[in-house]
Amino acid sequence: QGSDAAAADRPAEAPAETAPAPWLTTLITETPQQGFDLAITLARRAVKTTQPDVEVLKTQRPIYAGDADSLIEVSGVAAAWFATVAAANDYWRE
Amino acid sequence: QGSDAAAADRPAEAPAETAPAPWLTTLITETPQQGFDLAITLARRAVKTTQPDVEVLKTQRPIYAGDADSLIEVSGVAAAWFATVAAANDYWRE
Amino acid sequence: QGSDAAAADRPAEAPAETAPAPWLTTLITETPQQGFDLAITLARRAVKTTQPDVEVLKTQRPIYAGDADSLIEVSGVAAAWFATVAAANDYWRE
Amino acid sequence: QGSDAAAADRPAEAPAETAPAPWLTTLITETPQQGFDLAITLARRAVKTTQPDVEVLKTQRPIYAGDADSLIEVSGVAAAWFATVAAANDYWRE
Amino acid sequence: QGSDAAAADRPAEAPAETAPAPWLTTLITETPQQGFDLAITLARRAVKTTQPDVEVLKTQRPIYAGDADSLIEVSGVAAAWFATVAAANDYWRE
Amino acid sequence: QGSDAAAADRPAEAPAETAPAPWLTTLITETPQQGFDLAITLARRAVKTTQPDVEVLKTQRPIYAGDADSLIEVSGVAAAWFATVAAANDYWRE
Repeated sequence: QGSDAAAADRPAEAPAETAPAPWLTTLITETPQQGFDLAITLARRAVKTTQPDVEVLKTQRPIYAGDADSLIEVSGVAAAWFATVAAANDYWRE
Repeated sequence: QGSDAAAADRPAEAPAETAPAPWLTTLITETPQQGFDLAITLARRAVKTTQPDVEVLKTQRPIYAGDADSLIEVSGVAAAWFATVAAANDYWRE
Repeated sequence: QGSDAAAADRPAEAPAETAPAPWLTTLITETPQQGFDLAITLARRAVKTTQPDVEVLKTQRPIYAGDADSLIEVSGVAAAWFATVAAANDYWRE
Repeated sequence: QGSDAAAADRPAEAPAETAPAPWLTTLITETPQQGFDLAITLARRAVKTTQPDVEVLKTQRPIYAGDADSLIEVSGVAAAWFATVAAANDYWRE
Repeated sequence: QGSDAAAADRPAEAPAETAPAPWLTTLITETPQQGFDLAITLARRAVKTTQPDVEVLKTQRPIYAGDADSLIEVSGVAAAWFATVAAANDYWRE
Repeated sequence: QGSDAAAADRPAEAPAETAPAPWLTTLITETPQQGFDLAITLARRAVKTTQPDVEVLKTQRPIYAGDADSLIEVSGVAAAWFATVAAANDYWRE
């Protein structure tokens, strides 16, 4: 961690020997579609970092996935993540 | 996929032999209007990635398409996607 | 259209011979004020792409145009579109 | 106007001889504080372009100016406009 | 003021001889933490430009500071201001 | 602090001898995952700067962490902070 942020604000880190494999090693993808998928992954990961309990997330799914305003908001959030992934890949320009 | 994101967070991928044709192969368009259309496509695709059931989306349409605040939010989401497409195309500067 | 996005997600395109004249041929404007106006145009166009029925839009106008939070949201959406137009014009720097 | 946007989407333009003086001729300001003020001006102008009736705006003022969430939203909108003005001025770096 | 914006939209300016000292003379800070603090300052200043009455702001504090959604929104607004301050400081790269 | 912002808007600063160690000394991280974690840290820190009372924050947790729209908003806020951290690290391009 580059900055010595107050421990309480940092996402909980598992001790080294049981630490899970890194889930995000690069923002670089081969195609824009993979970049789109990575943006969705990042968006969902931010939710799971806040609410690790998958059961809670499952109960919420029918609520947001069946609500127009929530779905519009989801697209806006995906756009924000995608903007960063696209810039990282220099927009996959040939 | 450039990063080995936890499978659960990645959008579901169909096995290779039945995988649909890629839907997003480039962000480059010939004109700003095509760029605008691509932004709308990306915005809608993010919704469908979250809610694949087209019937559910159809039931929601009269709700958001007839609501001022939802329509304003839709335009903001389109702006976020368009910002990335426009940057990818160097703003279609001659 | 640069990408072969699934037809269903693409905004409906009229057949060539009856296709309307292109409405967005460039993001370049002579002045920041024209750029501001273009941003408003893009914002409204995104709404109309979602809700083409002008009568519906007219019924919604008194609702959002008389509501503080909606008007604040409109300004935020205009800012997002203007950010892209301004970047396209290199901020109209002499 | 750089693009031949459909008239209906363009903000109404007064005929040349009665056209008011241009209100936005540059994004360049001498200081960050003037840039902050310009961002507030742009944010308010976007509201007035949507709701030209100043009396309506006056009735809304006590509502948003006395509501925490509205005030937070206003700050977010100002940040979006300021981001563009600051970039235009290369962040007033010496 | 770089642009001759309509007076009504400009934040009220005190006459020169009683004008308060400038509050924002630069976006440059020595450290990211000072940049974070400046972003908070800018966010709060945008609120005060809209609602100068500190008493009103004080009555609102327990409302937003005790509400999850308001606090999440506050963080998003701070992120928008911080993005500009960080860019101004070239991200405090050594 | 680079700018002489009105004291009232600045986050409270403890006197030098009791000042806590700086919590944010750099935006640079070794990996995108650490960058993601730093974005979460920054997002949470902005909340705590607004509401320092950890007990209040604890009472709010079950509310936002169990609400779909709040969780979507949290992801959007994380995306905004991450965008800045990623740019600071030049997207961890090799």
